[in-house]
Order: sequence, then C-alpha cells, then structure tokens
Amino acid sequence: MKIASTLTAAALIAAVTPALAEVVVVNQAISETEVLAAQKGWCQALVDISSTNANSGRAAATALAEKVIDSAYGYQMGTVLFKPTLTVNPQTFRTTRAGALSYFVAGDSNYPNDSGFALKDWTKCEIDNASIIITGSSASTMGKVHFTDGSGNVTTVDKTWKFVKDDAGQLRIVVHHSSLEFTGE
Amino acid sequence: MKIASTLTAAALIAAVTPALAEVVVVNQAISETEVLAAQKGWCQALVDISSTNANSGRAAATALAEKVIDSAYGYQMGTVLFKPTLTVNPQTFRTTRAGALSYFVAGDSNYPNDSGFALKDWTKCEIDNASIIITGSSASTMGKVHFTDGSGNVTTVDKTWKFVKDDAGQLRIVVHHSSLEFTGE
Amino acid sequence: MKIASTLTAAALIAAVTPALAEVVVVNQAISETEVLAAQKGWCQALVDISSTNANSGRAAATALAEKVIDSAYGYQMGTVLFKPTLTVNPQTFRTTRAGALSYFVAGDSNYPNDSGFALKDWTKCEIDNASIIITGSSASTMGKVHFTDGSGNVTTVDKTWKFVKDDAGQLRIVVHHSSLEFTGE
Amino acid sequence: MKIASTLTAAALIAAVTPALAEVVVVNQAISETEVLAAQKGWCQALVDISSTNANSGRAAATALAEKVIDSAYGYQMGTVLFKPTLTVNPQTFRTTRAGALSYFVAGDSNYPNDSGFALKDWTKCEIDNASIIITGSSASTMGKVHFTDGSGNVTTVDKTWKFVKDDAGQLRIVVHHSSLEFTGE
Repeated sequence: MKIASTLTAAALIAAVTPALAEVVVVNQAISETEVLAAQKGWCQALVDISSTNANSGRAAATALAEKVIDSAYGYQMGTVLFKPTLTVNPQTFRTTRAGALSYFVAGDSNYPNDSGFALKDWTKCEIDNASIIITGSSASTMGKVHFTDGSGNVTTVDKTWKFVKDDAGQLRIVVHHSSLEFTGE
Repeated sequence: MKIASTLTAAALIAAVTPALAEVVVVNQAISETEVLAAQKGWCQALVDISSTNANSGRAAATALAEKVIDSAYGYQMGTVLFKPTLTVNPQTFRTTRAGALSYFVAGDSNYPNDSGFALKDWTKCEIDNASIIITGSSASTMGKVHFTDGSGNVTTVDKTWKFVKDDAGQLRIVVHHSSLEFTGE
Repeated sequence: MKIASTLTAAALIAAVTPALAEVVVVNQAISETEVLAAQKGWCQALVDISSTNANSGRAAATALAEKVIDSAYGYQMGTVLFKPTLTVNPQTFRTTRAGALSYFVAGDSNYPNDSGFALKDWTKCEIDNASIIITGSSASTMGKVHFTDGSGNVTTVDKTWKFVKDDAGQLRIVVHHSSLEFTGE
Repeated sequence: MKIASTLTAAALIAAVTPALAEVVVVNQAISETEVLAAQKGWCQALVDISSTNANSGRAAATALAEKVIDSAYGYQMGTVLFKPTLTVNPQTFRTTRAGALSYFVAGDSNYPNDSGFALKDWTKCEIDNASIIITGSSASTMGKVHFTDGSGNVTTVDKTWKFVKDDAGQLRIVVHHSSLEFTGE
C-alpha cells in the first residue's frame, strides 16, 4: 500500500487549522422551540383575526385570515388534513384552502353551515400540550387549547397538530384535528 | 491530469456486467399500500377483540388487546399521542400503554371512567379516508371510521392517524386522534 | 354512553359514497424511479455541457452549467457536501455554488487548479449502482460511474449521492462524493 | 352553536395546572452533538481495534471489530453503502457485514486483497469536518479524517458519512465513502 498524502503531524496541524474555522452546519431538524413558537403563532393569529374583525370589519379580517392560512398551513402541497372543531358532515374535513378560509371567516356560499370560528370575539388562546413527538422531519403535538372570548367564557378543545418544515425553514401545519371535549353524556 | 483507471469501452462492459445484477435496494419509504393495510389491521383488531371477548371472555380479550397495542402502536418510543373517542377530562389523553389498554378493555382502577371501547360488540369497522399525506418517513390519514355493532347500529367518528416505520419495517401508530362527529347542537 | 351520530348501515352507505371518490393522496416519499431518473439527468447534463462547449463555446457551456447546478443541487439550502473527483487540498470540498461551478467549467480565479471537468469532451456517462437506500425523506446511492470521452477512453469513478425532495417535489443533490478508483499502488 | 365545555377562566387555571407539569417530549431529531459524538466514536473504535490487535492479538481485534460494526453501522437494515479507502475493483463496495469486517481486520478468503485497515497501528484519528447537513431524520458529514500511526506518519482521507437514528435512539452509519486525497498527478 502506498498512500500519497502523508504528512508529519506538525505539518498537518498547520494545514487543517484554517479549514476548522469554516464548518458550515445546516440543521433542518425541527426543534421543540420552533414547535412551541408555531403553536403560539397560531393562537395569536386567531386572536388577531377576531380583533381585526371587531376593529376594521369583515373584509380586513378575511384578508388577514388568507395571509395566516397561506403562511401557517401547507395547502400549497396539495392537501391539508384539517378537521376543524365545529364543521358538520358532509363538509367535516377542510382539505382545501377555500374550505379552511370559510371555516375561519365564513362568507363562502359553498359552505353554508360555517359561521366563522375566528370571528367569535376571541381575546385569549392558550395551549396546554399533553405530549409532543418530534421525529426529525415532522413534529406532532396533542393537548388542550383554551379559547377565551370577550365575555370571559372559555371553550376548550382537544387538538392535534402535525408540522413539517418547508424549504424556507418555516414550520407549516399539514395535519390539524380539533374536537370538543367528550363529556360522557 | 492523469487518471489511472482508463479502460476501453469494450473491456468496461465485460467488467460491469456482473455488478449490474447485484444492486440491492433498501426502500424504507412508507407506501400508500402499507398505510391502507395498517388501517385495515387496526379495524380488524378491534373487531377481533370484541369477538374474543364474546367467545372467550374478558381475560382473553385483554391479552389480545395487549398484543395489538404492542404491535400496532409506538408506546415503546416513550409516548404516543392518543386521544380516544370517549375519554373524559382530566384523563382525555392516553400517552401511556396502560392508558391505551384501559381505554380498549377497561378494568384498570386508575381509569375509573373507562368502559372498554373494544368490548362493545363491534362486528364491522370501515375506513373512509378524506385524505392521506405521506411525507416519506411518516404518513398521516384523516377521515371517517364507521363502527357497526351486533345490533346493526353504526357509530361514526372523525379519525386522524400518524404512522412511522420501525426498524423492522412495520408501521406503528404514533398519533391517534378520534372524536365523535360534531352535530351543530 | 350516548353517541349522537348513529345511523343504520343502509343510510351510511349512501352518505359516504360521494366522499369515497374524493380521497386525495399526497405522496412525498422518494421512489426508486425518481432516484434513477435524477442520476440519469445528472449524466445527461454532463454530456450536454460538454457538447455545448464544443458546439457553442465556453460561455454557453457555463450558462448551462449554472442552470444545471441551480436545478439539480441544493445550494440554496446553505451548503452542499460536494467532493468532486479531481479537486486538490485545500480546495477539496465545494460546499458553495461558486466552487461547484468552477469545478465543472473552470474560469474562476479563486479556484486556480480547476480545469473544468464538464469540458473534457464527454460523450457518454453510465451509472452502475452497487446499492441504493431510500429512507423516505432522503435517498442515497453508491456505485461506479463510467465517463466516455470523444476518443473512446473511459474513466471510472466511485460515486455517492444523497438526494432530498424540495417543496416543488424535485430531487436535489445535497451530498456528492466522487473519487478515482483506488488501484492498490 | 352550543359548546358544552365552558368554564370560567379561574376554574380553568385550576383544572389545567396539573396537566401542565406532565408534558412528555419525545425528540428523535438528530442533533449536531450526536453527530460529532458518533464521529468521535468511530475514530476511537478504529484506534481501539489497532491497540487491541497489538496487545491481545488478531482474534481479540476481530471480535472487537465485529462489535463495532454491529453497533455503529446499519447492516441489519439489509445494506450499507460503504466505499472504504483502500478497496479495489471488483470488490470496491462493502455493502455486507462480511465485506466490512474483512476490510477492517482481513482474514476472509473471499476478500483476498484486504490487509486489515484497522490493524495498521493507528494511534490517533482526527476529524476535520468541511460541512454538516442535518435533515432531521438523517445527518450527513463531509470532511478530512487524519489517521496517525505509531511511527507518527499521518494519512489523510476525504470522508462522507450519513447517519440515521435507530429505534433505540442510536446513530448508525448507513453511508460511508472514503477516498485518498487526489493529488493532481
């Protein structure tokens, strides 16, 4: 065996020192911090749509809802698995952007039963995770989410989210299942 | 530039032919077929636990439920995000194996409200997917699942599953959110 | 337990039939077919740059090489792990787009040792995979690649590629290690 | 809309406080720390096999090499993409455990050209990464690795590794491409 690239240890140290300073690390793994921030972002967006509706009217709230959906969900992938809290059969699942928008702000005659969940005067939205699983390229959360309206009433739902990271490094919701708590009655 | 390994094209063809026959492909991506099979397997397991309970008694049904949980879910990972259809607060989420087992066959005094979902005489379980997203290393499904009992009554739930593939190549449920349909009342 | 949504089996079938036709499946898993196509695409691009250089000159070849790099590699992610066949220390690794372009078509004074691998009159490029591993969200290949030039001389390299799928569904090279065969001397 | 689970904010805080303390987070994403540790582990194992060979003989070194391969590589998956530094055609690629073992400690008549890379009296092994890409469920590294033998001679190779995490949470090498530096001659 003849190995061409043989140096003494001393020469080696000199040679590799500059390279050691230039290690670029691209880390696309999803972190817990990113997951918690994405959850908080969703909550804040919901409250913001409510307050925009109250202060600036329905059209402004709808424009904001479109912006939120386009930045926080993954509808550009082709489908999102979205089961909102209050939809009824046969329009339970909102796998398209139009279906999601109607759920949040209503006003779409194709979804006559929607009343606009984001318009219900929400003033607070709090997340209480039961557990989080980060598999590396996706992250899933499950827990309670508590919505407080302007009168102080609290609605609690059981909510599951699955996030993936897009090419720009932003988390996007690709699964969202929300349901009212079962009360045993 | 001197490149040592230069052959004529003719010699090359002779040299590479044996190697061409030996390409090993390991494909760990999750396929749609595997997802549909895992869903059917869950349904069949539920019906099997019910019939085992009817024919061989509670102990046999419990033993089968343990086997099903250990082979179909991912509790050995540390947690599973499981929101069963009929659990009530503050025991809504069953992130441990014990909590899942109690939900299916009851009998655990730590979960006093459980009546054993898998013991309710189910004779049929049908899956009606709204949409499926396979991200490569995980697969998520959302849709209706219809349970028929021995009297012909049908219960429909909205169900989300997330599957990952374990080292042995088997799909395991790591997220499971089930909820009764919202009826608008 | 009271479950609101109870239907007879007959009513159920009528209700779910339309939904059954609408299952959208988004499958982002990487397939073997996609991997083989990406490899062939790389080979064809190399031959195309060579023939463009011969027929239309260096500027046209460079423009094509830029296009190839931007569509086939993942430099927009921040780094690509690229060890070309013929680079020398301390510029062995080409983790930036500029370093890759210089390797293929030379002409960048920052990389004085580059002579332009894609300009070497390649007329054929053949892939002989030893093995492929698809982990779902990434795919890796290893094997021989044989380059034939206009005089019929064949150069063989050992080559490893790792591909990931971008948001648009296209495979991109994020790891590329190429080396001349070790001959034992 | 009637939502059953309405509480005052005060009652809510009391109800959710216990749950807040129980968030289980399973994080299977690969971290940079884990990658660096796996690389160091590989280096240490190589030096250990060398010193075991010197101190306890070939059989002990072989036993250790088997242990290292079984714990650090992913051969149980079905294949590993392994192009060792010094293998020659047509046995360049060692996609099986037997081929890897022979490369490290020789002694297998099926691989007559192997002299046992791990038996070459290595006393030091240092990693100088050019770049690292962590995609979440896999991590790839590329850089120089410097091997120092008992006489102080240093051999440098260009090395690419891809790691995945197994069900037990341990990183395993599934791709390993090593090559002597090209010297331009």
